[in-house]
Amino acid sequence: MTLFRLDASIRKVESHSRQMADIVEREWREAHPDEPIISRDIGTEPLPATAWAAAVTAGSAPEESRSPEQRDAVALAAALTDELVAADSLLLAVPLYNFGVSQHFKTWVDLIATDDRMQPHVEPVVAGKPTVLATVHGGYYAAGTPREGWDHATAWYRRILADVWKLDLRVIETEFTLVGVNPNLSQFEDMAARMRAEAEDLARSYGRTLAA
Amino acid sequence: MTLFRLDASIRKVESHSRQMADIVEREWREAHPDEPIISRDIGTEPLPATAWAAAVTAGSAPEESRSPEQRDAVALAAALTDELVAADSLLLAVPLYNFGVSQHFKTWVDLIATDDRMQPHVEPVVAGKPTVLATVHGGYYAAGTPREGWDHATAWYRRILADVWKLDLRVIETEFTLVGVNPNLSQFEDMAARMRAEAEDLARSYGRTLAA
Repeated sequence: MTLFRLDASIRKVESHSRQMADIVEREWREAHPDEPIISRDIGTEPLPATAWAAAVTAGSAPEESRSPEQRDAVALAAALTDELVAADSLLLAVPLYNFGVSQHFKTWVDLIATDDRMQPHVEPVVAGKPTVLATVHGGYYAAGTPREGWDHATAWYRRILADVWKLDLRVIETEFTLVGVNPNLSQFEDMAARMRAEAEDLARSYGRTLAA
Repeated sequence: MTLFRLDASIRKVESHSRQMADIVEREWREAHPDEPIISRDIGTEPLPATAWAAAVTAGSAPEESRSPEQRDAVALAAALTDELVAADSLLLAVPLYNFGVSQHFKTWVDLIATDDRMQPHVEPVVAGKPTVLATVHGGYYAAGTPREGWDHATAWYRRILADVWKLDLRVIETEFTLVGVNPNLSQFEDMAARMRAEAEDLARSYGRTLAA
């Protein structure tokens, strides 16, 4: 049994999405002490910004007439897809940034979408794989809060992972991670601690699901 | 009077967002035949994928202890912001890709958001500038269509440009540009042509607004 783990946080330390994914991974590891984890860190080792356009334009060019850059991009998209194919379950740690998606995660998705095995109108090669997405918000965006509607990332993450790629998706949303960092939010400390504990419980539970 | 134009399409030819922006630009140019246009093409000359994290981490480091990469990233973010500051009005041509934002536009936004003049809790230095966003969808995502809710980009584009940066924003949405390309959509040719004509009218009208 193999786990694939993706990290999109640009921080190594004090990254809440990495901390949540660590909890999920620990549960998986406990059940599978000797089995492989494939790791891809697009937050600290980003995919090149030029690769996607090269992969798209390569799609319409016969293989022998492709440029070296196009060949590299097609090979990169295939390698990223291979990592998903090789895994039995997926763990994706992807924050919200500037009220939107992680640029690096969008690049990763765009690239994989160019692979032959992930085209529309065919069943995605990754369909059905048990997947946990751990996403993190500095603020609090739930219904009824002043920032309701300002999380423009999670719905797109779900759209691609569940609706387009047809993964068997579970989502852990950790909210209000700026409490304790931003002094203006100190009145929310109890609430944030309670939500954090709930998210951690969910992470343990989902970790056992991935391991099953 | 100066116009800033940004293009995020990864295509140079047959790019619908560039075509719509060309219409806007022509109106502006007619009113201002000898005045400068600042162009930034992030679709074909993308910003580096590593710059944003370097600019973010530079923010907390004293200037003299920054790495060369951090200095470059801070200078790039400042240069991108300077281009907006130098312009009287802004024209942004940004497609929808994979039901989400342009990865290159997200990178551009993330970088600018690191500049001192664009921090939260200060009035953004670009506030109030007349701005036209020309965005383009291959499909048709309006209310009542089968793909209602699948445009996960435009709402975020508006959020950043209008709510966070406080630009005086007008949006042109060109829908169904895959009609004529994808044979399965040929039944929608009349509808797509009508919507295209309406979008082009809007582009001319907004071009005159930017020029005023």
